[in-house]
Amino acid sequence: MIQYPKGTIRPIQNQRPTKRIQSSTHSGRGMFLENLLNQTNQVYLQKKIAVIHKKPTPIQIVNVDYPKRSATVIKEAYFRQPSTTDYNGVYNGAYIDFEAKETKNKTSFPLANIHPHQLEHMDNCIKQGGIVFFIIYFSSLQEYFLIEASYILNYVDKHKEKSSISLSYIKKYGYSISISMQGILEYLPIVDKLLSKNVIK
Amino acid sequence: MIQYPKGTIRPIQNQRPTKRIQSSTHSGRGMFLENLLNQTNQVYLQKKIAVIHKKPTPIQIVNVDYPKRSATVIKEAYFRQPSTTDYNGVYNGAYIDFEAKETKNKTSFPLANIHPHQLEHMDNCIKQGGIVFFIIYFSSLQEYFLIEASYILNYVDKHKEKSSISLSYIKKYGYSISISMQGILEYLPIVDKLLSKNVIK
Repeated sequence: MIQYPKGTIRPIQNQRPTKRIQSSTHSGRGMFLENLLNQTNQVYLQKKIAVIHKKPTPIQIVNVDYPKRSATVIKEAYFRQPSTTDYNGVYNGAYIDFEAKETKNKTSFPLANIHPHQLEHMDNCIKQGGIVFFIIYFSSLQEYFLIEASYILNYVDKHKEKSSISLSYIKKYGYSISISMQGILEYLPIVDKLLSKNVIK
Repeated sequence: MIQYPKGTIRPIQNQRPTKRIQSSTHSGRGMFLENLLNQTNQVYLQKKIAVIHKKPTPIQIVNVDYPKRSATVIKEAYFRQPSTTDYNGVYNGAYIDFEAKETKNKTSFPLANIHPHQLEHMDNCIKQGGIVFFIIYFSSLQEYFLIEASYILNYVDKHKEKSSISLSYIKKYGYSISISMQGILEYLPIVDKLLSKNVIK
């Protein structure tokens, strides 16, 4: 892992998520990372390595039609704000919980992408002994990082005025993830490191 | 726990879920148990005892409208078959995964309520070291049971011709759950028993 000197890289504020993404509840995360993770989790499931799923997007249903002899049709519904993270499951006896985020920024990750109730959820999961983290994809750099949620919680708590978290911080406390030959994002070897660290504690 | 003699109670087949429930993806489970469990999990969350949530119902979105200056409206969508269980989370370092089912039957639980892919999911979670179970509510008897998924998997595997599982089997291998003074379904004390059993193994 490259150790950048602290504080030399300043966050760039002028790159914001596109309007299309902002209008959805997908919270600034593009579909590329989501698809890659779904594929990865499917491989892990098939190979009996781990059982990790993306939770369905929460929907508020307002109006439903029950046509005879055919499937129920939802005629009016709205996206709801998720109150937890997107992914959870079980691996090697451990509870796994994470949020996947994508940014076009090159030197920082905008904190507006993370909802306060998601951070609260992550904090609660850590206290119950779960392995909780973020997977952040810097799409312009084509780089993937896994960083434990505790570091993000700590940062947000100490720097309430900041609107983003620098890439250097993520590199310092997180781990770079690589895409394997099979085209999957191999994040479980990093979870192994976190698990062994937890045992040592 | 009452130990009924084996095989003395025959399943009753003439009580089927109502049409309304069958047409939805709620798989024969009424809303009463769901509401009770949501309330219970909320209390567990508030008291920092456990982080267990119901997953959102999976929806297949077909048509979406993006009106200017207001929330995105889903105009056409369908319920999808859930590929996992309804509830999961973390408690005291353990991964918790369960399915909640309700039946009006008095002496048996209809297996049609459980989807094969849910059983497969539960089997996978057990193999990863999760605590996996069913909470079954016999609404006519007003009785709640927690039974480890392994017993249901075992039953289904050995009795492929059976369309239901007898209440006596559930009583023999499961645990009765009671509603507390606060109106919550106290299932975590039973999870404690399962956890201590797992440690002894």
